[in-house]
Amino acid sequence: MADQLITLSDVATAAGVSLSTASKALNGTDRISQATRDHVRDTAVRLGFRHNALARSFARGRSQTIGVLTHRASNPFTRIVLATVATELGAKEQAILLYDARLGDQDITESVLQLRARRIDGLIVIGTGTSYPTPSLTSRFDVPVIYAFTSTEDPNDVTITSDDTAIGKLAANHLLSKGRRRLAHITAEPHDHAAQRRAASATQALADAGLDWATPVRFGRWREDWGEDAAREVLAEVPDIDGIFCGSDAIARGAERVVRASGRRVPEDVAMIGVDNWEQLMHDQRVTRHLTTIEVGLEEIGRRVAAQLLEPDPEPGTQYVAPQLVIAETV
Amino acid sequence: MADQLITLSDVATAAGVSLSTASKALNGTDRISQATRDHVRDTAVRLGFRHNALARSFARGRSQTIGVLTHRASNPFTRIVLATVATELGAKEQAILLYDARLGDQDITESVLQLRARRIDGLIVIGTGTSYPTPSLTSRFDVPVIYAFTSTEDPNDVTITSDDTAIGKLAANHLLSKGRRRLAHITAEPHDHAAQRRAASATQALADAGLDWATPVRFGRWREDWGEDAAREVLAEVPDIDGIFCGSDAIARGAERVVRASGRRVPEDVAMIGVDNWEQLMHDQRVTRHLTTIEVGLEEIGRRVAAQLLEPDPEPGTQYVAPQLVIAETV
Repeated sequence: MADQLITLSDVATAAGVSLSTASKALNGTDRISQATRDHVRDTAVRLGFRHNALARSFARGRSQTIGVLTHRASNPFTRIVLATVATELGAKEQAILLYDARLGDQDITESVLQLRARRIDGLIVIGTGTSYPTPSLTSRFDVPVIYAFTSTEDPNDVTITSDDTAIGKLAANHLLSKGRRRLAHITAEPHDHAAQRRAASATQALADAGLDWATPVRFGRWREDWGEDAAREVLAEVPDIDGIFCGSDAIARGAERVVRASGRRVPEDVAMIGVDNWEQLMHDQRVTRHLTTIEVGLEEIGRRVAAQLLEPDPEPGTQYVAPQLVIAETV
Repeated sequence: MADQLITLSDVATAAGVSLSTASKALNGTDRISQATRDHVRDTAVRLGFRHNALARSFARGRSQTIGVLTHRASNPFTRIVLATVATELGAKEQAILLYDARLGDQDITESVLQLRARRIDGLIVIGTGTSYPTPSLTSRFDVPVIYAFTSTEDPNDVTITSDDTAIGKLAANHLLSKGRRRLAHITAEPHDHAAQRRAASATQALADAGLDWATPVRFGRWREDWGEDAAREVLAEVPDIDGIFCGSDAIARGAERVVRASGRRVPEDVAMIGVDNWEQLMHDQRVTRHLTTIEVGLEEIGRRVAAQLLEPDPEPGTQYVAPQLVIAETV
């Protein structure tokens, strides 16, 4: 059997006051003496009283529910942002109502109508990364909308996302700081915005040091097998290559396998750095790390989005979360 | 600006009926003609009308909100179950309210009180695996409670989790089916229930084939560096070992590195199998896979939990999700 739920009436009885006085003391809606207020509140705490949140939400016209729209909730990056958002909002008594665009045959309009009917207090749109922009939905809601780990075509949208320009610069500068001078870059499709921006800022960092890539940037896919193929090309073209910036950890895993199989040592002969920090995100605790990489800040994005959605006026525009260098064995 | 939200009054006006008739037609709460009902419903659909879910919830005394209690929401296994649960429930108009036990200084009692005050319609407790049981909270709620990816000490609790006994048997039998006969097992702590059960059922599978391990089971930790250490011991003790069952993919990654560095080929000399299917779970799509492994069914657990929580009477007891063999390159 469940323990009995404590009602306002129980509190009033135990405190020896009327139901109306108990309500006033706990809701702060009318003038009563501080002593009475304190007495009723102490009694409520002692009994373990909690407001009936459903009745209170209805009275206020607020659902204490935040809508979350995902493009693909099963995407591993999306999951990290989603879990963080749900945790942070839950700690503030806010529920989330998730619509995953991939699930439904229905288009986004249907999701918008359902979310509005649910009287959500705000909306978070979680993307799968910065590769391609997402449509802006802000004008279709009269509650705050924040975009996480994606971008839109409207520069006034409140967007919190990763910083590909800073990521590319950080990776290139780390290789340079270790004295590496014959560098290659292996990354994803040439039309992928994240790949473009990481490549452009890394190229600029090399130029600032008076250098250029030892071999043209290899554009391909965010995949381990592409890392293998591209590393073979790089080694054939520049046998004395001494550093490889891989656009993702998946690419780096494939590339490292090929570099090692060629008889070269990592990092002594070839230093390698990836992006994503998958080893730590997979393990949820500090374990021995192998691949030097860059943490793009998915959990930080989730925390900031949750915090700002509950603020009265989130600032319009894009906020970038600073990436963090995660040094391990490979450079 | 947001599009105007369509009210019941708009529907009534457009359909040329009274507000009361419109309400009856849409809620099915009174006797009106089928023709009128159809007409009002068609009008509502055409206008894009949605009930005010908040008002309707309040009238019904249901919050359309499911409580979710996690032990550690940032755990990567928990996140997969959580994202699946949120997606499946969202598709059925159910919000989730998450309390993460790790976040709060408050104990579990506080979370229980808050969840009950919120008038949740059901509760899902998501664990971090089958290594250790979680306390039963079922008796403290008068709504359905389901446990996901964990176990409790009450056999009547509704629990949906992974099947360590089937996992161990599947792994051992796969190695045996490939003709391997000199086998080792590297796994986690000896007091970890998941490690124990996987080891016991794999040992039984060997016994059923008239075999025993070529070297005692190595109990250690769920870590890559333990995989390295244990593999070194195994190779030193049984140089002609021809198969290794690793209790997790992390252990397998470390062990494989050592096996290859010793000059042995995988799988030609040493076949290797892990558990967790991390390569696929990390990538959200079918990519070239390297490690042969076992999918324990985290997404399936999430789907079943969400479906059963919304059923009138979930069946008491533990339901095990069948593991799936994922064949790749290493055996």
